[in-house]
Amino acid sequence: MSIPARLQVVVIGVNDLATVRAFYENLGWRSRPKDGLFARFQLDGAALVLFPRDQLAEAVGRPAGEPGFGGMTPAMMVDDAAALDAALDAAVEAGGTVVAKAADRPWGVRTGYFADPEGNVWEVCALP
Amino acid sequence: MSIPARLQVVVIGVNDLATVRAFYENLGWRSRPKDGLFARFQLDGAALVLFPRDQLAEAVGRPAGEPGFGGMTPAMMVDDAAALDAALDAAVEAGGTVVAKAADRPWGVRTGYFADPEGNVWEVCALP
Repeated sequence: MSIPARLQVVVIGVNDLATVRAFYENLGWRSRPKDGLFARFQLDGAALVLFPRDQLAEAVGRPAGEPGFGGMTPAMMVDDAAALDAALDAAVEAGGTVVAKAADRPWGVRTGYFADPEGNVWEVCALP
Repeated sequence: MSIPARLQVVVIGVNDLATVRAFYENLGWRSRPKDGLFARFQLDGAALVLFPRDQLAEAVGRPAGEPGFGGMTPAMMVDDAAALDAALDAAVEAGGTVVAKAADRPWGVRTGYFADPEGNVWEVCALP
């Protein structure tokens, strides 16, 4: 047996949909629907869905714990180190935080990490 | 300022790369490189990267906590309810677990959830 090799969506459970949606909109991203239970951002690669954290946990049947870094991060690629710095700056301007400044990592790429207002961490990776 | 609207990769921090890689390979997915620090699966949508959890946490500058559901899930779409059931069966056969059986959710779609050997939870969603 096999499963289709697909990863079309990343669902992030959020406590305050309006606040977290506003952050991603501030990045210049557009979501739909404008009203309702969730917000969906169609991105290059996978889509991002912001969904109520309590309902997600109920569906999964497991406690979601506290928001924040849970050992899994969505990642985006940018063209170079300057674009990486610009992305981290934009995240701060949008209401997020830089959790790790851009640095050359031991595994051979340059990455930095920002977090949305509930601490969900994204990697930004400069293409070599 | 804006950030490119991109989500090309999901990075999952793992404690036992060989075991977790074997699970995803058992789904019929192929990874590269065959040896090294990490494993990358190119999927339809975003890529999946399995990466050492301790090194990911060090790069992010935050403790990763215990593996398992952290309120964020990658998701895949399948054609119908039968394909959803088949995907959950395949996950079990590959060495994973079903954490929530397929069910019609209050928000109007049919989903089920499986976990890899370290408890990282995926959503499988049947297209309406």
